[in-house]
Amino acid sequence: MPAWSAPVRYAECDQQGVVFNAHYLAYADEAVAYVLAEHGLSYGDLLARGLDTSVVATELQWSSPARWGDVVDVDGQVERVGRTSFVVAFTISVGDRLCCRVRTTYVLTDAQRTPTPVPDDVRALWLRGAAAP
Amino acid sequence: MPAWSAPVRYAECDQQGVVFNAHYLAYADEAVAYVLAEHGLSYGDLLARGLDTSVVATELQWSSPARWGDVVDVDGQVERVGRTSFVVAFTISVGDRLCCRVRTTYVLTDAQRTPTPVPDDVRALWLRGAAAP
Amino acid sequence: MPAWSAPVRYAECDQQGVVFNAHYLAYADEAVAYVLAEHGLSYGDLLARGLDTSVVATELQWSSPARWGDVVDVDGQVERVGRTSFVVAFTISVGDRLCCRVRTTYVLTDAQRTPTPVPDDVRALWLRGAAAP
Amino acid sequence: MPAWSAPVRYAECDQQGVVFNAHYLAYADEAVAYVLAEHGLSYGDLLARGLDTSVVATELQWSSPARWGDVVDVDGQVERVGRTSFVVAFTISVGDRLCCRVRTTYVLTDAQRTPTPVPDDVRALWLRGAAAP
Repeated sequence: MPAWSAPVRYAECDQQGVVFNAHYLAYADEAVAYVLAEHGLSYGDLLARGLDTSVVATELQWSSPARWGDVVDVDGQVERVGRTSFVVAFTISVGDRLCCRVRTTYVLTDAQRTPTPVPDDVRALWLRGAAAP
Repeated sequence: MPAWSAPVRYAECDQQGVVFNAHYLAYADEAVAYVLAEHGLSYGDLLARGLDTSVVATELQWSSPARWGDVVDVDGQVERVGRTSFVVAFTISVGDRLCCRVRTTYVLTDAQRTPTPVPDDVRALWLRGAAAP
Repeated sequence: MPAWSAPVRYAECDQQGVVFNAHYLAYADEAVAYVLAEHGLSYGDLLARGLDTSVVATELQWSSPARWGDVVDVDGQVERVGRTSFVVAFTISVGDRLCCRVRTTYVLTDAQRTPTPVPDDVRALWLRGAAAP
Repeated sequence: MPAWSAPVRYAECDQQGVVFNAHYLAYADEAVAYVLAEHGLSYGDLLARGLDTSVVATELQWSSPARWGDVVDVDGQVERVGRTSFVVAFTISVGDRLCCRVRTTYVLTDAQRTPTPVPDDVRALWLRGAAAP
């Protein structure tokens, strides 16, 4: 089961009849809370600990379009954990067909939105599910 | 000069090649601050007085589509002022061609988002510009 | 089971922490295909018959906000069928709590987007599920 | 004067009070037609020649947030021209403050959306304005 999934909406498709590119970024961003939850720490848990995240950078690479009538599945995993940042790699697919890869770098912040070191237990949870280097 | 104006964005047009209906509501909502400013009271002034607004109801009526390449002009005026609510009537046009009429009822609230009576001086400003009944 | 349902997305909530008003219109519009399917005629069936729809008018009335973390359920039914138009009434709810009522008038068109009379069998399907007058 | 410019819309800001990340991609994508026009070839010219573009990949890097009340300015230039592809580098700023860098790789296609070599005169126009390697 994917971390996050949704039928493509009519309003997300442009005049070319395909999902407009910015929506893929919105899909990945919406999925990140579910990806973190799969790693054992929900976004709500983060907030409850006085932590939050900010997006620093993201890369998207498209392979094929999604269209109205398709269901997009988003999967992801924490790929790397730095001192105050972490990277999540997402795939956005329709069935077996890959549509877009997204790789996003987040910085962990405190409630005042100042970058803050990733706590050891959070690092352990995130690395547990991460790909071998 | 219209209260608010913007070139139609590519991403706002759907597979039929016309602006998707929900964006007209977004245009009107974005324009309301400028319409209020034309009546002599900016949205920032409202917030500075500890007031805010909530949308209660809205009606949209379409006459013709806007397309990528068009510039949409939004005009509006306060049409009616109730005890805690007010109605703004908007027109959304491309040049001389009317695309959509929007009529939105707002409730005035305090900072805790509880409905609050429209102050007399605000009522006077809003009615000054309003259409005769 | 509602005709259409979706978790509220983070990007749909504004600075007030509630779903921005235009998204309710997008929810209802996305749901209409599913509502028509419940009446026995999918949007795909319509297109296959050389028919399409255009939105003519819509009214929205809000009762309570939806927030990130909520799941919005959209239900609807064909409320009235005219010669070339029809009206669908939607409710958008979170659990038992009504958030917004939407009533939308569509015109039935041919593939060239010219209004066209509602065929008798389509009328019958739509009225079968409709509320008594 | 920037290639494209727009006041931030209220609906583009999320619960953190800043423009939601996916909108920066939408800003850049909307600006590309104006950037190409600055290079001497409008998007309309491209279409008139039976050409179109598809987005292949994009990278975004954020430095500071844009907020409601800010005006975002988008500038860009063709940075590289390949056999069938080209890269546009964008900056998204508020006044003198850089908010986001976007670098997007497009493939040039024919009307059937098959990749097609960049014509020599188009290449010349695009490189004329491009940064020295």
